[in-house]
Formats: sequence, structure tokens, C-alpha cells
Amino acid sequence: MNVHIITIGDEILIGQIIDTNSAWMAGQLNLIGAHVSQINSIGDDEEQITDTVRRSLDRADVVLLTGGLGPTKDDITKNSLAELFQCKLEFHQPTYEKILKLFEKWGRETTPAHKAQCYLPNKASILNNKMGTAPGMWFEKNEKVLVSMPGVPYEMRYLMENEVIPKLQSRFPGQPIAHRTILTAGEGESRIAVRIQDFEESLPSHIKLAYLPNLGHVRLRLTAVGSDQAQIEVEIEQKAMELSNAISDLVYGHGEIKLEEAVGQLLRDKGLMLSTAESCTGGYVSHLITTIPGSSTYFKGGIVAYSNDVKMQQLNVNQETLESFGAVSEQTVTEMVRGSLHQLGSDLAIAISGIAGPGGGSPEKPVGTIWMAIGNHRIINTQKLQLSKNRLKNIQYTGNKALNMIREFVNQNYPL
Amino acid sequence: MNVHIITIGDEILIGQIIDTNSAWMAGQLNLIGAHVSQINSIGDDEEQITDTVRRSLDRADVVLLTGGLGPTKDDITKNSLAELFQCKLEFHQPTYEKILKLFEKWGRETTPAHKAQCYLPNKASILNNKMGTAPGMWFEKNEKVLVSMPGVPYEMRYLMENEVIPKLQSRFPGQPIAHRTILTAGEGESRIAVRIQDFEESLPSHIKLAYLPNLGHVRLRLTAVGSDQAQIEVEIEQKAMELSNAISDLVYGHGEIKLEEAVGQLLRDKGLMLSTAESCTGGYVSHLITTIPGSSTYFKGGIVAYSNDVKMQQLNVNQETLESFGAVSEQTVTEMVRGSLHQLGSDLAIAISGIAGPGGGSPEKPVGTIWMAIGNHRIINTQKLQLSKNRLKNIQYTGNKALNMIREFVNQNYPL
Repeated sequence: MNVHIITIGDEILIGQIIDTNSAWMAGQLNLIGAHVSQINSIGDDEEQITDTVRRSLDRADVVLLTGGLGPTKDDITKNSLAELFQCKLEFHQPTYEKILKLFEKWGRETTPAHKAQCYLPNKASILNNKMGTAPGMWFEKNEKVLVSMPGVPYEMRYLMENEVIPKLQSRFPGQPIAHRTILTAGEGESRIAVRIQDFEESLPSHIKLAYLPNLGHVRLRLTAVGSDQAQIEVEIEQKAMELSNAISDLVYGHGEIKLEEAVGQLLRDKGLMLSTAESCTGGYVSHLITTIPGSSTYFKGGIVAYSNDVKMQQLNVNQETLESFGAVSEQTVTEMVRGSLHQLGSDLAIAISGIAGPGGGSPEKPVGTIWMAIGNHRIINTQKLQLSKNRLKNIQYTGNKALNMIREFVNQNYPL
Repeated sequence: MNVHIITIGDEILIGQIIDTNSAWMAGQLNLIGAHVSQINSIGDDEEQITDTVRRSLDRADVVLLTGGLGPTKDDITKNSLAELFQCKLEFHQPTYEKILKLFEKWGRETTPAHKAQCYLPNKASILNNKMGTAPGMWFEKNEKVLVSMPGVPYEMRYLMENEVIPKLQSRFPGQPIAHRTILTAGEGESRIAVRIQDFEESLPSHIKLAYLPNLGHVRLRLTAVGSDQAQIEVEIEQKAMELSNAISDLVYGHGEIKLEEAVGQLLRDKGLMLSTAESCTGGYVSHLITTIPGSSTYFKGGIVAYSNDVKMQQLNVNQETLESFGAVSEQTVTEMVRGSLHQLGSDLAIAISGIAGPGGGSPEKPVGTIWMAIGNHRIINTQKLQLSKNRLKNIQYTGNKALNMIREFVNQNYPL
């Protein structure tokens, strides 16, 4: 099935907001084997909406519309669609009752605009939006489908996941398709490709592998297309297992889990308490860890030792170490790990000190030089990175690298 | 001038990347008074490119194209454009020499694909891309302009800022336009609107005010349109000053500066050293502060006191305080400020403790309850927030709020 996505809203055209809805929708459609051939952003303008939708209905099987439906949008989108599908706006009692219930729950009063919102094109099937007031609308005409959804991201996502995707799958039954995503950290795309060359060459033509890299992570996505769903599920499961086994040291999870979540799960499973000692990352590693709900069960806390004073006083780094080797050195990060373990009473600590940039480098230690250490009361491992001059990218990349160092250390030193 | 933006690339249509280029371009064009009426994302497909560009040239004065120009893209875009503008691809020696120089600097070898990249449509003016290998191309035909740029964001931005925007301004001299942006924190959109009602009503019809809110900040943008550039510059400067004075307690800067940058500048100017003590924000405030280059001149470091042990041992919070009032209390954050000042030897400390969610609330302290304190060795101010159940939003909002608390405290207690 060939799909066009159209987002309606002046905010996008003046650059005030970035259209993240389309990318999310395109990703979901890709997973069910649909082909998105065009994404369009247009303004809240009746003529433009009518013109763009008509043209897309000529060229695609399915047109997905978001935005232009709020209680303050003056019904431009609804009017355009009613005209296109030659129908009238009629009061839709179930939608009104749902809005009344929502407002009762929120303890707020409805306005006349909410009542106006319940006048809906009488040829559309109404899709129940449990997350907000504007319903989705499903139109069909000449074998084509048009769906109109609100632009609020979580409302659109709710409707896509619960209504639109399942209905599209039954309306346009395509070839059975199956996916498995394997999440890796620790090696770049090209090094992984070398390691799994045999595996890739062994893949039958109906199973494809895609590399999706992002700042120190690579997601590997297997997609199988076939004639029998049960059979391709078995095949792809087998291939996903083979692939996981071939690079088991790099795999931190499957599906959609984040690295900080996987690391948290690992620490929780092993009953370990972590602490941090951060210099150049300035709290970013602690931040990543504590974005996960429940992280207090495995994270004690950390010291952001930005100045050398703090390194000495809070982390017991020796003045001689700083003087002889510098703050960005293997020796310093090793002492920072010991200090963090001791001061915060944790089982495991990670330490980072580097030159994040863009200034502050020297010939021996250029901008982007980062030292990292991880350890417990027995063993400390260290690692040196040589990154770019982009401060924020250096911080983000190092943060992901730190999470992966924790993962590797726990796997190596706390086997099942 | 009416503009269409077209981005070319299969990665966008499968949802692998979000199109941030278009929003940035639309924002820049909005600033020079251009009207973007459509944004299109299409695939690396010659027919679709030709079809979409032709249609946009019919409807817009200017068509801006990004993407589809890399050395591996098989020249699809260039071929489409050469056909549309009825010209031939010819070898462009200056582009080749520039690529050779770039690769010499990087210490890498060019490939045959780079030579192929230098065959360019002979009717286009070539725009020098100093950030990468693919040049920009400027076409004109029947009073219309088409510009093709690479899709790499920093290359596109370089070309827009240095070549495309200035050329468009001289090619389509519109009405003189002037902008001033005033950056505020501390009040929401509606409260600001009440405070500046008189100012807004006093604005002449050729000066408009826009509110651009984002997680605890509101940018106020004044736009003046007139017939004489010098005159509107004087007028808008006057109005910007009036507006700044009316809400001087909320204004942290002008133009494009970030709050963390403005706070850093303020601390540097006053010669103050800051430290943090974070519980629920888990290092996020320290992270924000240290994203700014040179922050070590005013930031000593911080304690991420996620567990009560760390609050007691590293920040000297009394056990009785935690037992009587709880970790999320005015008393605890007050002691955390004192502990951070004392332990880290700073002039100023900020402390945060709260229930970030989504779980962990109680009837007296529901999810989203956040206590914050800021102080020096003489004065400590506290503040309570009641936020949502969304963990990440709570952390981000609190982080911005913390930066603004620092700003307000310094302004109040360290006057010039």
C-alpha cells in the first residue's frame, strides 16, 4: 500500500515546531510493510488542504492527515473533507458525551467550541480518541482511504496504534511481514558489518538486515517477508538468535528498550548499587541513569567533580596525581572510581574526566581526549577515547559509552 | 516571496530520521518576511523529484531543495534538475579543486565518486559550500528561483546563511522588516500577557508581537514591517526597550542566547562560584550548566544525592530532618544548600528534591511535588513546584526553573 502523509498547521511552516509526527508515522507504517512515498506540510488554508488532499488521493492508496482539528481551528479541515467526500457535517452525540465525560474528570467546563467540534462529516467512520477531544475520521471512496487525526502527538499515536494501523492491515492485507530489532553498543556500523559478514551472506533473499546507527549505538533490524506469517516468525526468530549469538558481547537488548534502561535492569538483577564521579560529562551520565523510573533501587548518587578542589576533597584524588599526570589521565579517573566507591558506599563506580571542548586542548591532550574508568573494590578497568571538537556531541557520546562500560563490566565480573 | 521547501531522501520516508532542516529553514525565511506555503519530503526518485519540483515552480516564487546530492546518490537530483532547466552536466574545475584541498586537509583519499560529483548543470550558479564536498546550485527561469543544497544540516545552514538568504533578499527585495527577540523565564505565556497588556495595546499596526513558549521559557518576538529600514529599526529598538523594562524581572537575554549561557555570564560577571545538590533531577541541572564552554570558571561541581545516605553523608542533611519532614521538604533542600556550600566551597548553591514520577507519590506529596532551594552563606530562598506525572518533562522543567532561580537570586542579592 502506497501512503501519503499530510500535516496541517501554520506553526510548522513558520519553523516554530518541528514535525516529529510524520517521522513516527512513517516508521510505524514501514514496520507493516507500507510504502510512504510523500510527506507534505501545509498551512491551515481550506483551498490548499482541498488541493493537496485531492492530489494525494490520486496518487496514493492511503492518505493520512494530522492536525487542523483543534477546537480553535474554525473547522477548516472538516469543511474541506466534507466537500471532498460530498457529505454534510452532523452532530455526533457519542463524541459529545465523551467530551463531557473527559471534562467532568478534569473538573473543567466545556466551551461552545467543544460542541462545534462534535459536528462531523456524516460519511466518515468516527475513530474514538481516548486521549483528547478531537476524534479521528476514516473516509473511503473509490478504493482509497483517507484518515484525519488530531496533531497532538500522543493523541495521534493513540489513534494510529489502536485504530488506524489495525484497520489498514485488514483493509490492505499485504504480504505477511515480521521484524526483530537487536540493540547493540560498543562497536560502530562498519566493525559490526565485518563481524557478521558470514551471517549476512547466509540470509535468504526474503530476510533483510538494516543498520540504524545513532551516537555509539547501532540497532540491527531484521525484516522477513513471506507468504505464511507463522513460518516467517519462526525463521526470523531463528535468524535473530543467530545474529545475537554472533555478537553477544555487543547486544544490550531487543525491541525498543533504551541502553540506560537495560543497564538499570542489569544492576537491579545483580543487586548492585552504582555511583558516579563525573568531570567533563558534568552530570550527564547521572542524568541518563535517573531518567529511568525506579533508578533509586540501583543508583546511590554521584559527584560532579568539575574543579580539581572537588576531585581532591570529595573524591580523595591525590594532589600529586593531578600535578604529575593531570586531571585528564588514567591515574586520575582510577582514583576517582576509588573515591566514589568509598565516599558514596556503592558496589560499583564509573568515573570520567576529559576535555569536552571546543577549547582547552594541548598537543599531548587534544580537545576530545576523554579518560574513563569503571570498577568495584577489586578491579578497575580504564579506557581512553579520542573524540571531536563538538562539546555537546562529545558529552552525549561519552554518556552512552559510559553506560556501555557499566554493562560490559557487570557482564564480565558478575556472571550468572 | 512565496517559498516551497522540498527535502529529498528515503531515510525521512521510512521514519529513520526526523526532518529538522525544513523547520530551521522555515524559521530563517520567516525572519526575512518570506512566506513558506509548503514543505514536501520525497524519495530519491527521479520521476518524483521532477514532478514535485515542476509543480512547486508553478506555485511558488522560490523552491529550496535539500538532500539527494551525496557522492553515493547516483546523481538523481542533478539529472532531474538538468532536465528541468534544459541544461547539461559539465565538469566544474573549481569544485574539484576545493574537494582535493578538503581531502588533503583531512589526510584522506578521494574516490571516483567525488570526481563524478563535480559534473554540475551548466546553467546553474555554483554556491561554494565550505563545509563539505557537495556545492549548492542556484537556478533561475521565468522569474522563478530554485536552489539545491546538500542535506547535511551544518552544510545546508552554512549555505543558507552565507549564500542563499542574502541572494534571496537582493533578488526579491521585499518590504523592510526588523525583529527583536526578548527572552524570558519565570512566568507563563498568559501571566506575561496580563502584565504587558497596556504595551501590546499601544503597539502600532505595523509592529506585531508573538509569544513563543517552551518548557518554562517564553520568547517574545517583535516584528516591524515598514517602508524605511532605518526608521523601523529605531522604532522596534524603542519598543523592545519598553517591553524589556515592563518585565525586567523576567528578561534573561535578547536574541538567541540560552538560559544556561545567560546564567553563566551572570555568574562570571559577578565572580561567583556555583555548586549544586540534586536529588530528583539526578544531575540534569549540572549537565545544563556544563554544556556551556568555559563553565569551569563559575561552576565548582555538585553532589547527586539520590539516596538518603548520600544526602546525610555528603551534604550533612540531618537524619532527624529526613525522618520528620521527609526527603522532599523545604527543610531538607535548605540543609542540602548548606551542605553543598560547605562541602564544595562554593559561594552559591542550588538544591532540588522531589518526586519526579511516574510512581512514588502520596496523598500529602503527590507525584510532581518538587522542593527547590537556593542560597549563599547568609540567605536561603525556597520554592515548591507542583508538576505533572511525566518524569522526563518534570526533570526538564525543573532544570529550567533552577537556572532561573539562580538568575533571580544573583540579581536580587548581588546588585551592580
